[in-house]
Amino acid sequence: MELKFPDGTVKEFEDGATVKDVAASISMSLAKKAVCGKLDGKLVDLNQKLSDGSIEIVAKDSDDGRIALWHTAAVVLAAALHDLYPNIKFGEGGVTEHGFYFDTDKEDGQVGEADFEKLTKKMEEIVKAKEKIEFVEYDLDEALKLVENDEYQTEIVKENAEDGKVYGHKLLNHVDFTSPVSLEDAGKVKVFKVLSVAGAYWKGASSNPMLQRIYGTAFSKQKELDEELKRQQEAHERDHRVIGNNLDLFFVDPKVGAGLPYWMPNGATIRRTIERYIIDKEVSWGYEHVYTPILANVDLYKQSGHWDHYREDMFPPMDMGDGELLELRPMNCPSHIQIYNRHIRSYRDLPLRIAELGMMHRYEKSGALTGLSRVREMTLNDGHTFVTPDQIEAEFKRTLQLMVEVYHDFNINDYRFRLSYRDPKNTHKYYDDDEMWEKSQRMLKAAMDDLGLEYFEAEGEAAFYGPKLDVQTKTALGGEETLSTIQLDFLLPERFDLKYVGADGEEHRPVMIHRGIVSTMERFTAYLTEMYKGAFPTWLAPKQVEVIPVNLNLHTDYARKLASALAARQIRVSVDDRNEKMGYKIRQAQVNKVPYTLVVGDNEKEQGTVTVRRYGQEKTETMAFDDFKKILDHDLETYSRNED
Amino acid sequence: MELKFPDGTVKEFEDGATVKDVAASISMSLAKKAVCGKLDGKLVDLNQKLSDGSIEIVAKDSDDGRIALWHTAAVVLAAALHDLYPNIKFGEGGVTEHGFYFDTDKEDGQVGEADFEKLTKKMEEIVKAKEKIEFVEYDLDEALKLVENDEYQTEIVKENAEDGKVYGHKLLNHVDFTSPVSLEDAGKVKVFKVLSVAGAYWKGASSNPMLQRIYGTAFSKQKELDEELKRQQEAHERDHRVIGNNLDLFFVDPKVGAGLPYWMPNGATIRRTIERYIIDKEVSWGYEHVYTPILANVDLYKQSGHWDHYREDMFPPMDMGDGELLELRPMNCPSHIQIYNRHIRSYRDLPLRIAELGMMHRYEKSGALTGLSRVREMTLNDGHTFVTPDQIEAEFKRTLQLMVEVYHDFNINDYRFRLSYRDPKNTHKYYDDDEMWEKSQRMLKAAMDDLGLEYFEAEGEAAFYGPKLDVQTKTALGGEETLSTIQLDFLLPERFDLKYVGADGEEHRPVMIHRGIVSTMERFTAYLTEMYKGAFPTWLAPKQVEVIPVNLNLHTDYARKLASALAARQIRVSVDDRNEKMGYKIRQAQVNKVPYTLVVGDNEKEQGTVTVRRYGQEKTETMAFDDFKKILDHDLETYSRNED
Repeated sequence: MELKFPDGTVKEFEDGATVKDVAASISMSLAKKAVCGKLDGKLVDLNQKLSDGSIEIVAKDSDDGRIALWHTAAVVLAAALHDLYPNIKFGEGGVTEHGFYFDTDKEDGQVGEADFEKLTKKMEEIVKAKEKIEFVEYDLDEALKLVENDEYQTEIVKENAEDGKVYGHKLLNHVDFTSPVSLEDAGKVKVFKVLSVAGAYWKGASSNPMLQRIYGTAFSKQKELDEELKRQQEAHERDHRVIGNNLDLFFVDPKVGAGLPYWMPNGATIRRTIERYIIDKEVSWGYEHVYTPILANVDLYKQSGHWDHYREDMFPPMDMGDGELLELRPMNCPSHIQIYNRHIRSYRDLPLRIAELGMMHRYEKSGALTGLSRVREMTLNDGHTFVTPDQIEAEFKRTLQLMVEVYHDFNINDYRFRLSYRDPKNTHKYYDDDEMWEKSQRMLKAAMDDLGLEYFEAEGEAAFYGPKLDVQTKTALGGEETLSTIQLDFLLPERFDLKYVGADGEEHRPVMIHRGIVSTMERFTAYLTEMYKGAFPTWLAPKQVEVIPVNLNLHTDYARKLASALAARQIRVSVDDRNEKMGYKIRQAQVNKVPYTLVVGDNEKEQGTVTVRRYGQEKTETMAFDDFKKILDHDLETYSRNED
Repeated sequence: MELKFPDGTVKEFEDGATVKDVAASISMSLAKKAVCGKLDGKLVDLNQKLSDGSIEIVAKDSDDGRIALWHTAAVVLAAALHDLYPNIKFGEGGVTEHGFYFDTDKEDGQVGEADFEKLTKKMEEIVKAKEKIEFVEYDLDEALKLVENDEYQTEIVKENAEDGKVYGHKLLNHVDFTSPVSLEDAGKVKVFKVLSVAGAYWKGASSNPMLQRIYGTAFSKQKELDEELKRQQEAHERDHRVIGNNLDLFFVDPKVGAGLPYWMPNGATIRRTIERYIIDKEVSWGYEHVYTPILANVDLYKQSGHWDHYREDMFPPMDMGDGELLELRPMNCPSHIQIYNRHIRSYRDLPLRIAELGMMHRYEKSGALTGLSRVREMTLNDGHTFVTPDQIEAEFKRTLQLMVEVYHDFNINDYRFRLSYRDPKNTHKYYDDDEMWEKSQRMLKAAMDDLGLEYFEAEGEAAFYGPKLDVQTKTALGGEETLSTIQLDFLLPERFDLKYVGADGEEHRPVMIHRGIVSTMERFTAYLTEMYKGAFPTWLAPKQVEVIPVNLNLHTDYARKLASALAARQIRVSVDDRNEKMGYKIRQAQVNKVPYTLVVGDNEKEQGTVTVRRYGQEKTETMAFDDFKKILDHDLETYSRNED
């Protein structure tokens, strides 16, 4: 048997050698650290017999080691459940970015948080006893017999069977057929925690039964677990779905439509404010905003290439009769090309900047849908600039300046620029115009340098149709996502035969620049919600001022007078005149993260003042009402930016 | 044979009696005035043999008399065409609101405006000769032989055949099988005019061949024709499709999607201004604006009843797999019910006013699509207020006040209110709650009277689900259309089991009020375009100010300085610095209907003044730039209302 190592060396081993054998053949210390192996990219148990292929020894503290640990914990979880509830059924199990899970189905009521204590105790017993976990081969018949009362496992076993054989991991009375790998014994799952439950459709399809997914995580050190729990708590506090629910910003009703959010008045106010801001900003930067239909004949997307290359992300077309097939657009570029082509364009018209808050529809798998950040219907802050090849650098720079200004207004600081080029080793995989690529990549880099912006370069990350710049931002969950993008496109102008008449009187081909500044309204609102932890700055806050009369009988009139004066200035304000205690009302205003709470009693009424409490601050300040209005004006003019 | 007359009397006639005989039996003067008859609601020739039924004698100057005249003119047109082009084929012919038409197909090039003179001359010959038009019965075989080279007429003849017989009108060599009625001779078509041509699909289906439709009109007096031509000229000048093209407001590309308009930057600016205006207005009136998805599971529309009663106006559903069928919404009410049902509602929350600029899709037949006024994708200024039954009157009144205020701001004066009740003789055809109907109809009337608004009452015009108020406005083409509406709805709250907790702590059923103020953005923009003839008031105009330097070398800097100062105040302004004559530029600004043109030369530059020309005025006025800014501010604050 021949095994190839990561350093390229190839060694021979006896047939039937295990990962453990291989590790020991290299060094004792490696054998000691080894928790499993990786054969041709697939994790394998220490005791699994190997065959020809590329081998890696996986150590305890590596990423792969952690994945193996989580699979092991999933096996322990399942064994504990099996012991506690002999009739429980098991769907799929697996690992996530931060732990493990197992899907279960229990006819007499699903496992809930109330069962966690008992479950944890049972798992601890198994861990402490360091129960062996065996990698076992079964005949298919034998395996099917083991899971005969579990229709999910029966399906899994059948799917996994190869040449009449199935492999499983045996721990106590339980045989697990879903985990691809496991450590040698349950004792390795030293530090673990059962975290939460949530419904999950069998195989992710909403037409299938809903199972109960049990989440947990595990580490080799308590400190790591503590850090992870802290991170999760933080992520939970920032999670826009949690905040969105608490502040009544939006909801999704999967029965009526998965991935189709309803924006409640509070969320809608934030969105409308963002929309007006970005439109006004873009108009002032020379963009022409349009409205274009969200439906078009499928032919348009055949011409653009989306139908061939992007169809699996598109909604099914609608047959309108008469041979007309209408498609919900997955992108706005073809619509803006329609606008470009409405007139004959001259070089004097360029750069022509067409922008729109364009609604699009993309078919995302239901399992991937997440609150506002992954949806099926979205409205993109989209723009397409048509330029002559010579204008690329200047327009790219101008777009970047606009972007930086917008980020500044929203107080977004935690991002980095990625300049994406074609792969110089595989230029044949890209749009075929070497000179255009070389020139434009140079232009983009020159523009970044000229503006003094820091960036990193990524070869091979360009789109097929041209180089691009992405702005990578941090998400609440610690990941990174692209918020904004500027992409050159040499291809679409060709596919749609776009032209402009040059100074020479001849027809030329323009270049298109796709750009999105604040992304979709959905994703950007999710992003801001997490970034601000729901405490939106004054200009974005759904309610900007809450006025609380100290005594309902004596001070409500004055409170109302103040509110009217503010409302006349388009301030979003209300008077809390409910029959509740003042302290309760003040707390409520804090819970709702209202930027300013005004408490008004005798003194305030007599002197025309207000007592102001800013969100998140304990101290209050009494000031003339006019001064408070100035504070508001300043907030709105400066977008409450940190440095102003 | 028995014939029943409009006054209810029944008389006996001999079998085979004609309209002429019947008229003569009553009075000689009636026989003289009679041009045709109407048997059981269908027009019949004077010489046609009658059978049992209800008969009306149609006189020359009546509406029906005019329709018969136009059908006769269509026969004359066809006979003339037949004579001029022996191989021409005929599709359908008929009458419109303002004249007649005939569809034709000519293989060696369609009939065009260049042929009108020759065609008119030939028709005049036939008219002057007072050629007889005979009503003739044919055997089907005989008729098919007559049209054997015309596949369209062959189809029509087959469709018209009854018991092997077909009826036609014979004029000279031509037999017409499409006109249902005709006067006795061509001489009756005294005053006529061939007007225009346009493409029209055979049977209105875009998968069929395109025929050439020839339009004309005819009257018995020259004066009537002159009036009609003037009206048509006026309608053409007001036609939002014509203005929309001239001012570059929007376009439709039927190849990419019939009834799916693209809003160019100019049109989009008008729309955006309307949208912001109406949202801000509604928010200040206590509405909560939301965004809801345009897609929902078909089940939602099954529950609302749209699927059963409105399906033919809906788009086909999309199969998303997993048994999920998504539907483009035809109305927004179910979406706003979702918002209502998101929380438990108390009587303290009512009236709850949910509003949205809600995009909807309706399947209109391609033949009915018209510019922006009849489209398949539209965005409605929609709102639904949820009230307790006792709040109906106050909320209805409040909605009316909002409506009147909005109409005032847009300078809309030519409208009338229609209060629509259920039909008291057919109450079983309506939602079954007599008390609710009586009470609410009384409330609506009381509110109108209380506000001192004039209205007319229309019994039997209510919706199935409740009484309503419609605002009827005049269209450019002389018709009437409903621009705004307020509709009570007792049904949907029941279908969706809507509830609120009353002061008594019990659950009660709210009433819904559907209301639209400025209609869809598409229709309202079309309406305003026609009302203003494209000369939009300052606040709506796509470009508000054009600055023209007298001399490009000397005055462009000053012009740019003015433009920057205005742009900083969000004024939509540009400097015409093209290398063209000043007079040309001033004319262009008028053609583009820009509200203010500023001409600046030496004097203006030295003294900080501007020379202002208002749209449509010859005289100019020189004033300090600051004074001009005040005029603009006043325009924007007052929406340039007439009386301000």
